[in-house]
Amino acid sequence: MAWARWGCCPWLVLLCACAWGHPKSVDLQGEDVRNCSTSPPYLPVTAVNTTAQLVALRQQMHTLNLSAYIVPDTDAHMSEYIGEHDERRAWITGFTGSAGIAVVTTGKAALWTDSRYWTQAERQMDCNWELHREGNIVTWLLDEVPAGGLVGFDPFLFSIDSWESYDTALQGSDRQLVSIEANLVDLVWGSERPPVPNEPIYALQEAFIGSTWQEKVADIRSQMQEHREAPTAVLLSALDETAWLFNLRSSDIPYNPFFYSYTLFTDSSIRLFVNKSRFSSETLQYLNSSCTGSMCVQLEDYSQVQDSVKAYASGDVRIWIGTSYTTYGIYELIPKEKLIEDTYSPVMVTKAVKNSKEQALLKASHVRDAVAVIRYLVWLEKNVPKGTVDEFSGAEQLNKLRGEEEFFSGPSFETISASGLNAALAHYSPTEELHRKLSSDEMYLVDSGGQYWDGTTDITRTVHWGTPSAFQKEAYTRVLIGNIDLSRLVFPAATSGRMVEAFARKALWDVGLNYYHGTGHGIGNFLCVHEWPVGFQSSNIAMAKGMFTSIEPGYYQDGEFGIRIEDIALVVEAETKYPGTYLTFEVVSFVPYDRNLIDVSLLSPEQLQYVNRYYQTIREKVGPELQRRQLLEEFAWLQQHTEPLSARAPHSASSVSLSAVSALAILSWSV
Amino acid sequence: MAWARWGCCPWLVLLCACAWGHPKSVDLQGEDVRNCSTSPPYLPVTAVNTTAQLVALRQQMHTLNLSAYIVPDTDAHMSEYIGEHDERRAWITGFTGSAGIAVVTTGKAALWTDSRYWTQAERQMDCNWELHREGNIVTWLLDEVPAGGLVGFDPFLFSIDSWESYDTALQGSDRQLVSIEANLVDLVWGSERPPVPNEPIYALQEAFIGSTWQEKVADIRSQMQEHREAPTAVLLSALDETAWLFNLRSSDIPYNPFFYSYTLFTDSSIRLFVNKSRFSSETLQYLNSSCTGSMCVQLEDYSQVQDSVKAYASGDVRIWIGTSYTTYGIYELIPKEKLIEDTYSPVMVTKAVKNSKEQALLKASHVRDAVAVIRYLVWLEKNVPKGTVDEFSGAEQLNKLRGEEEFFSGPSFETISASGLNAALAHYSPTEELHRKLSSDEMYLVDSGGQYWDGTTDITRTVHWGTPSAFQKEAYTRVLIGNIDLSRLVFPAATSGRMVEAFARKALWDVGLNYYHGTGHGIGNFLCVHEWPVGFQSSNIAMAKGMFTSIEPGYYQDGEFGIRIEDIALVVEAETKYPGTYLTFEVVSFVPYDRNLIDVSLLSPEQLQYVNRYYQTIREKVGPELQRRQLLEEFAWLQQHTEPLSARAPHSASSVSLSAVSALAILSWSV
Repeated sequence: MAWARWGCCPWLVLLCACAWGHPKSVDLQGEDVRNCSTSPPYLPVTAVNTTAQLVALRQQMHTLNLSAYIVPDTDAHMSEYIGEHDERRAWITGFTGSAGIAVVTTGKAALWTDSRYWTQAERQMDCNWELHREGNIVTWLLDEVPAGGLVGFDPFLFSIDSWESYDTALQGSDRQLVSIEANLVDLVWGSERPPVPNEPIYALQEAFIGSTWQEKVADIRSQMQEHREAPTAVLLSALDETAWLFNLRSSDIPYNPFFYSYTLFTDSSIRLFVNKSRFSSETLQYLNSSCTGSMCVQLEDYSQVQDSVKAYASGDVRIWIGTSYTTYGIYELIPKEKLIEDTYSPVMVTKAVKNSKEQALLKASHVRDAVAVIRYLVWLEKNVPKGTVDEFSGAEQLNKLRGEEEFFSGPSFETISASGLNAALAHYSPTEELHRKLSSDEMYLVDSGGQYWDGTTDITRTVHWGTPSAFQKEAYTRVLIGNIDLSRLVFPAATSGRMVEAFARKALWDVGLNYYHGTGHGIGNFLCVHEWPVGFQSSNIAMAKGMFTSIEPGYYQDGEFGIRIEDIALVVEAETKYPGTYLTFEVVSFVPYDRNLIDVSLLSPEQLQYVNRYYQTIREKVGPELQRRQLLEEFAWLQQHTEPLSARAPHSASSVSLSAVSALAILSWSV
Repeated sequence: MAWARWGCCPWLVLLCACAWGHPKSVDLQGEDVRNCSTSPPYLPVTAVNTTAQLVALRQQMHTLNLSAYIVPDTDAHMSEYIGEHDERRAWITGFTGSAGIAVVTTGKAALWTDSRYWTQAERQMDCNWELHREGNIVTWLLDEVPAGGLVGFDPFLFSIDSWESYDTALQGSDRQLVSIEANLVDLVWGSERPPVPNEPIYALQEAFIGSTWQEKVADIRSQMQEHREAPTAVLLSALDETAWLFNLRSSDIPYNPFFYSYTLFTDSSIRLFVNKSRFSSETLQYLNSSCTGSMCVQLEDYSQVQDSVKAYASGDVRIWIGTSYTTYGIYELIPKEKLIEDTYSPVMVTKAVKNSKEQALLKASHVRDAVAVIRYLVWLEKNVPKGTVDEFSGAEQLNKLRGEEEFFSGPSFETISASGLNAALAHYSPTEELHRKLSSDEMYLVDSGGQYWDGTTDITRTVHWGTPSAFQKEAYTRVLIGNIDLSRLVFPAATSGRMVEAFARKALWDVGLNYYHGTGHGIGNFLCVHEWPVGFQSSNIAMAKGMFTSIEPGYYQDGEFGIRIEDIALVVEAETKYPGTYLTFEVVSFVPYDRNLIDVSLLSPEQLQYVNRYYQTIREKVGPELQRRQLLEEFAWLQQHTEPLSARAPHSASSVSLSAVSALAILSWSV
């Protein structure tokens, strides 16, 4: 999955930087967007009246003598997706897009968002709000806030980095950034604010975990002992860190099975900050929560974290944190000389490398996920020509099919189901109201994934049921070559993804094409679909055996079509002619590429051989599962779509000749 | 040129990090190294008695109450090569290697250097000195310096970054880093210290410059005006910045035509800090040094820079610097809020992109340089089989041949002339005393370059005059494929070198081989042979049309042989099938690769075609020059060695069949 909200992860920021960099002119003459230049202003029915909210917020600001107040789009854990009760920016502005920062001054209210959301913002905001398509928030603040003015912010909604960038930019300007502990939007939101989730927090069954929480704690403790700066404690802020460490899950965050929490553990104690009432007595027992020894989890209320961290930090201690997921609110509680700062916490880095059981679990979830996706592709092939499928009903069908798979627990993100020109949009998901019909005359891109108890999946396939243009086939094949060339690359252990991601772009670059998003991201075992810090960006850590990453080059032709081919791959040891520690990828997504879109003449013999080996693997992994479940139509489809490609045979060879090729290829594989 | 002193540039640091990472066991049982464990210690004749130096230095330290004093290997301009009078670390330790940091405490003296220099250090140092092969200087300081102790350093020999790393590491340790303005080594070195160079500083002839100094100043001033932080001045510390800006040269630094200087210029004034007596009256006039207007260069003495910068910084000003080449000594003179810090100064970044005249000049110097290198290869082919050539006499012959080229002004670095196993050493140059005979049974690597008034050159060729092993041919061909694949890569404008350098490694990675140095560096017009900030490291700026970089993959088999194939390439616009701003490289080094070492069967048709086109270019560029100068033997050699390679023809085809191939190829090129 390549598209998601910005402001959270460097990978996503890159996506959005590109979106900023390539603004498209938007035609806003329609009646569905506001027009604040008429008198009275024209507001569409979708616009939200925010006057009362703003009056109330400005009263709060006045009490604290603030000239401005910043409302970001994050939560206190720098989560990629946020819960409803954290949608403060949406509530105060009316704009519900996932990316955008609001600033309110005594006289003005302004929203910054990227080009993906400009139209939506013009539809949803009233004329209290300025929409900033470009420009810098600090530059605007310097103009709007008088000398000596105070700019308030909630330190628990600012990463350390974002605080530093505001603080540095305001330095010497006679405007001061002021950390305000109580969130002012929450104060005025009051009882209307959706409640904090309170569903049970449960322990994963033993079958679905790679190590017990005791083993994980012991591992991190041994890393503390080996650390030259001798940390006395590790403090975890990201929600997936605590979920992973204790093998606990819940449903506080959309698409992510997490629960609001922090963890602070030392050599001799473990403190888990969470709403204790959410545990069953079995889970309390599972956590050894009634004792205080080194392997007992002491539960403290979520709201206690500040006081507890502050109290702990007053001792002779050194607290190890990962700065990427720690808020400034936590950071400012701890004296600087008592901090050991890494970009990622030891839990984040340890979690990135899956042990053999975790690898097997993730692979198994991908076999079942392939069954669902193949069933969907077969269903599309039958129904699209009838004209009965649209982007939204398609996505619903895919969700339904995934829902029939064992251990399914919901989608891992909102399905991107995009037909024709919609697939070229940087961010697109259909809605029940707004969607396009699928057609045999257009390309269709579907980027989707599931949360299963054993693993998280994410796969993108692009298909065409009619006659694609020569350019569409060329572009698709070049994207495919990029996917293949990166997937089969052999590289030294500990190479950073950044150093090799251009192999996924070269075939496009050769002819002057490119794509403007990242090439891949880590993925978890029933955790984040974008699991940091694995991937191909400069902020990712080096590749190591046991990591999983997506590989997802694409190509987007504005106003016409979009292509993305995404697989999940495991980093494995490569066998090389000369001895050495080299790595390569083993693809664990098992859905064939659309042969209707492949121009075989563009593939080298090595690329062709690679695809045919991959197809053979798909047959071996998914074929028996389809047969076991009597999905015979899907089994036949699979056989047909994984027949070996041949440099000589045309893509639409008759089934007779394909079978012959197939038989030959199978013979050659068995050698 | 891939090997040089460390501690200066990130590219070189990477090289040395690898050297640290791959220490080799060194046999130090011989009589040519010291043995401090016997009583009395055994010292070879090459060891330098440093007792008096240390006594005197400790007296100075005592006066200032210092517990330790750090002696780095840099100069006040972070130069890659340093002048004799800056060789403080060599003088205090006896060790003359180009890389190493010394620390003296009241009771101990210690040197840190990398594996390239361990043997040399054991030969040259007496038993006053500990040699540290590994480990961290700060960790050692924490053990050796008592609590409350002061650690002195010369701020003009510390980059901002190195100061920060020491300072951060010592924070909270109760040991304090103290900036000592007068260099303590200089104080005790006294009259023995070599004098500061005082040769004339001259202006380049108009034929050899791309723009006048007035045009360059105007360009940088317009960048100041466009800068959003509104700098009032630019301060230049790197010696090549001032040399480039004013089109001035001299000979203060080995291999680099620079002179000690700083430049501080504003919108309305230009101040050049330099020894004024070194200018002729014509050069003074050239600089408009007798006036004070915006295009007049006011000369101030080199030693005035501190006072002048401090005085200027006391006003309402903002000074724009490049932090990479500014010392902490300069940095601490300027209040932080008056600094505009970029990694590289605008002069450094502007200089990186050569205009069309500079491109033509650099290319012309490479044609003449190719003549010298081809003459050398012909000479080797005749003389090596006689057994009369060694690494040192070979390097001397090459210098002599370059000396016969027009506009030659000396080598651009010390020639790496390495036969057999010597070529596998990370850093190797032969000496009159220590060298190996060249032989038809071994590979020979020669990495060399010249300073010409129109350009700086740098080229590496690896050859074998006998029968290379299959592994040598495979390794050579894979290095060549790396060179070819990066050279012919098409990539989007503004791509960073780091993102594409793996294309130079892939053919080696495929079979489990690699090399542990950078893949390339910028180069100047009669300036640095390693000209930052162009190259393929993470600290390099993005590639742009008009930049020059080396492309130099290699392979090193410990104890056996070394391969490096280095060309200089110009970044040019690429023509792509679909419109877009794409770049590629145009190689401007014009010496054929050794066909005796190429396994043609490993090359793809595209790679073969690329080499044959390159060979045709060499013929077109260098052939006429050889003919014009009646170098007919060399002309015949060139024709033979640039005959097109053929996938079918064996590498040592008879001249008849090669001519036929050649004729065919020429026909096909003319199509």
